[in-house]
Amino acid sequence: MGFLKDKGVIYEPADRVDLGPDSDEVYLQANVKAPRMAGLLVKVFTWFLESPILGGILLYFLKRNNLIHKLVSFAELQEPPLFEPMHPYNGSKETEVKCVEADLPPPEKVRHVVDCLQSAEDVSESPKPSFQRWTILDYSRAYTSGEITPRMVADRFIAAVRESSNPPLQMSFFINFSVEDIIRQATESTLRYEQGKPLSVLDGIPIAIKDEIDCMPYPTTGGTKWLHKVRHCTEDACCVKRLRLCGAIIVGKTNMHELGAGISGINPHYGNPYNSKKITGGSSSGSAAVVAAGLCPVALGVDGGGSVRLPAALCGVVGFKPTFGRVPHNGTLPLNFTVGMVGILAATVEDSLIAYAALSGNLSSNPSSMAMPQVCLPLLKSANYMSFNIRMARSAKWFDDCTDDIRECCSHAIDKLSDKYGWKTVEVTIPEIEVMRLAHYLTIGSECSNAIAAHQEKILAEMGWDVRVGLSVYGAFHSKEYLNAQRIRNRQLQFHNKIFSKADVIVTPTTGVTAYTIKEDALKTGELDYINGAALVRYQIAGNFLGLPAVTVPVGYDKSGLPIGLQFIGKPWSESLLIHVASAMQALCTSEYKTPEVFYDMLAKK
Amino acid sequence: MGFLKDKGVIYEPADRVDLGPDSDEVYLQANVKAPRMAGLLVKVFTWFLESPILGGILLYFLKRNNLIHKLVSFAELQEPPLFEPMHPYNGSKETEVKCVEADLPPPEKVRHVVDCLQSAEDVSESPKPSFQRWTILDYSRAYTSGEITPRMVADRFIAAVRESSNPPLQMSFFINFSVEDIIRQATESTLRYEQGKPLSVLDGIPIAIKDEIDCMPYPTTGGTKWLHKVRHCTEDACCVKRLRLCGAIIVGKTNMHELGAGISGINPHYGNPYNSKKITGGSSSGSAAVVAAGLCPVALGVDGGGSVRLPAALCGVVGFKPTFGRVPHNGTLPLNFTVGMVGILAATVEDSLIAYAALSGNLSSNPSSMAMPQVCLPLLKSANYMSFNIRMARSAKWFDDCTDDIRECCSHAIDKLSDKYGWKTVEVTIPEIEVMRLAHYLTIGSECSNAIAAHQEKILAEMGWDVRVGLSVYGAFHSKEYLNAQRIRNRQLQFHNKIFSKADVIVTPTTGVTAYTIKEDALKTGELDYINGAALVRYQIAGNFLGLPAVTVPVGYDKSGLPIGLQFIGKPWSESLLIHVASAMQALCTSEYKTPEVFYDMLAKK
Repeated sequence: MGFLKDKGVIYEPADRVDLGPDSDEVYLQANVKAPRMAGLLVKVFTWFLESPILGGILLYFLKRNNLIHKLVSFAELQEPPLFEPMHPYNGSKETEVKCVEADLPPPEKVRHVVDCLQSAEDVSESPKPSFQRWTILDYSRAYTSGEITPRMVADRFIAAVRESSNPPLQMSFFINFSVEDIIRQATESTLRYEQGKPLSVLDGIPIAIKDEIDCMPYPTTGGTKWLHKVRHCTEDACCVKRLRLCGAIIVGKTNMHELGAGISGINPHYGNPYNSKKITGGSSSGSAAVVAAGLCPVALGVDGGGSVRLPAALCGVVGFKPTFGRVPHNGTLPLNFTVGMVGILAATVEDSLIAYAALSGNLSSNPSSMAMPQVCLPLLKSANYMSFNIRMARSAKWFDDCTDDIRECCSHAIDKLSDKYGWKTVEVTIPEIEVMRLAHYLTIGSECSNAIAAHQEKILAEMGWDVRVGLSVYGAFHSKEYLNAQRIRNRQLQFHNKIFSKADVIVTPTTGVTAYTIKEDALKTGELDYINGAALVRYQIAGNFLGLPAVTVPVGYDKSGLPIGLQFIGKPWSESLLIHVASAMQALCTSEYKTPEVFYDMLAKK
Repeated sequence: MGFLKDKGVIYEPADRVDLGPDSDEVYLQANVKAPRMAGLLVKVFTWFLESPILGGILLYFLKRNNLIHKLVSFAELQEPPLFEPMHPYNGSKETEVKCVEADLPPPEKVRHVVDCLQSAEDVSESPKPSFQRWTILDYSRAYTSGEITPRMVADRFIAAVRESSNPPLQMSFFINFSVEDIIRQATESTLRYEQGKPLSVLDGIPIAIKDEIDCMPYPTTGGTKWLHKVRHCTEDACCVKRLRLCGAIIVGKTNMHELGAGISGINPHYGNPYNSKKITGGSSSGSAAVVAAGLCPVALGVDGGGSVRLPAALCGVVGFKPTFGRVPHNGTLPLNFTVGMVGILAATVEDSLIAYAALSGNLSSNPSSMAMPQVCLPLLKSANYMSFNIRMARSAKWFDDCTDDIRECCSHAIDKLSDKYGWKTVEVTIPEIEVMRLAHYLTIGSECSNAIAAHQEKILAEMGWDVRVGLSVYGAFHSKEYLNAQRIRNRQLQFHNKIFSKADVIVTPTTGVTAYTIKEDALKTGELDYINGAALVRYQIAGNFLGLPAVTVPVGYDKSGLPIGLQFIGKPWSESLLIHVASAMQALCTSEYKTPEVFYDMLAKK
């Protein structure tokens, strides 16, 4: 890492750092000294923090205690800042893919991807799943055969959401959902099937949207009580438009951590479908939960610091975050600019692929934007997995920095891949992971603080206490510190590029802990739990700070029956390879999948 | 602009702002309330500023008084941040140019550009110049004919620099220059001419390098007494390498404003060749002065906030700043990242073109960098100027915000272009110019503060008082303010793109004032003169903050005989058109050019 001098670390130039398995780079565990706070304590703490002079002093010590001063703010780095993780496309050819133009209409892309999936099914030899949620193709077949109609699914959906909102479950899946709007869409879709003219396999599929994404006729609250009052939603976000073009039924706006500024997903109450006393993870908490509970095969989230992959893992579903820029950001709340993007939560890897096909591509209204590479859609033939010869990079000390259950489960999953397909694990060292987490925290915090600065004073009283603390910290970072964080971004990208010259994917657990218990006091005030927080985001940051594509697949459960996810991080624009790898992993795990405690069967026989 | 609310301005979305000549956008003059400070006053002020608590309070009021709070820090903007002015290349075809590949070797590019120039000369019908410095082609002809040798020029150069350094002139052109190194290069060049094998027309041409650019065998001081002690120069910057490949004689490191953090060029003493009691302007002060004084036909500068164009205008020479990214930045001091780049100071537009051909193009060692458009070299045929039908955008209130002499002289120059070539002036309104200046100030300040943060405490005592004040202010900006400045960057780029849909170039005076008097107290402490400072950079910022190419041409003199420059700002990648325009302007002005008071004739007959 370099050596400590005066106030800050002096980092060696990135190209001189040893990334081999025996590197003497020290693995720094998250050294978070902040105690968990909720209830009265967090209120008093907030009061101190928001008072002009005491607040400044408190912040100074907080930052210093958590090493952000030494490792980021006052560090000395030779790399210039990298502000946005926009990756050039090197045009490398992929195998076993169908490449389509980035500006093809969404229903066309979806048609192509269904061809890819159907060519795959014949040769599939996966073991029989012990439990599986209905997939998009299951819905599509049931609709096409007339066995069930979108309108019937809509009615079941509405009933299920109502039931789940009331005691004893009180799941608060949605912040807003309009019965009228759902029934209108479902009726139109039903008519299209009756006429034999569905728009695509997504026609009639219920899809939920995180309340950070603009979607008519709903306000966009961002999980707050005030944001929609100062910023009006006037049209669908680009990603929502694309889903509508494919015929999807948009079923409402899912719950989320307030402003996406936390990752427990507590806002205020929030339950995991596998155990309603446990957190879902966040910030795309509701989107993960509705997919886990079988209400929708797909939901959209926004991933600024693991906010799609992390709740997906905790809720036992697939979470997929494409390369930065692959899905246009227009119409999502401008809370962060350089780390966040739309991601997909889905019941299966194949469904996340279909949604990806619908969402990805250039923003047609902005011709001067970066030329986007073609969208490569993988031909998911399990017979091919063996021939891929995937090299999986594993940084041992980082990989192992999680609970025993997660470590064992994830290691076992990798062994399965090696045993079944002969894929090799490449042992590497990815240095300064904790430094990257802190640099990302400084970055996303600064961007969030900037985004709501104009409203902050007025709406302070309407915000949760945990978010108020966050905003006090975020607002105190200096521009020179922000620039240092961007130097660290450049440095980490160099490390990752070098790793990717030796491996096709990086493999990690998705989280360091499984879903933890929601404590009573947290429901009233929110909670500050930076230790669990650091464990939750431990493996997420490269996906955001470096804009790399990443996917999480459920691979098992801890001793108390809570889901565990395994994450694959890919090179820029390598979505198709990632989906291949995730699909191979999923095929080896479905035989052990468990039904969640809260589950609704939308396609149950009449 | 929008309306004022609470603490900050709420800006209308950029696309709703009227850019027409009768727009009701208010032209905001620089409202700088800071008094000029030098001597004891600046020392006391610095002491206050650097003290922990008083400093904070003082800074708060300083920023508020100068509107940076209202217009930038606490403004409310809808545009997302734009961090780097990297422009996509739309591949538009230019006329009357020769396009060459960006990665062609520098001597090849120079050969092509000389073809362009020579094809032009035959049809030239410019009036006879009243005074003209020797051009690169003059040197080249004299060397080729054997009339004079590079070695002879080197001897004259060394004698001239020595004489000028001593009383009465004390010009301090150079921070470092090595007689031995100059003579070695000149001897080698002379040998090449004797063998009939010069490397290019640049062979044997004395070129000076701003001391912000790495250049062996010299340390890179950045105008400081300490920077070279903590950062060692170990190889030539990319731009210097390219000049050497063409055979240029690198004659030393020119004086500059300390850290480029000011624009008077006082460091500590500095005299304008037209009047040694007047400032040269900065920060590339020495580079402008050596060209003005006839010591070199070309010198390199770095332009982060007008630092090439502004001293060029004050010293009566040509200053040319290409599009951001056109000349690789490698090997220049990393003092700012998103606004600065290497620029050219030259005696004539044609010479700046030859240097541009040598310097421009991809950085071969970085294949993942943005694909660079071809380098288009203009065929400078004056017979063609008429056929170009250039539309020159002029924003009247901004244009007129300068001294009477400058306004009259620049308006007269534009009239000449209209009269001679029939070019049209398009009246427009470019809004929020002062806002852009403040946003750029916040940006370049933050980047400078970040760049030297690691050393700041130790070397404070070794820095000039004016720079110490600057660093205190720079270091106090918050990351959320920096992000707001980048939103303003995005907004201004939208304005400029719209202007460029109606015009080919934007025309402005280069500076709001001509060279002002160096006061005695400024020599000891440096000076803080934000009012003159704002007037000097008034027309510079779009070139830096938006990365647009821009060129200044001398067009006349004020009543006291000090030079006045006219600036043309172009679309991204429109360097060849800009050079065409500048060359046309120059042709109409050379008949009135005046010899500076300090002038050396390097090619005088033996």
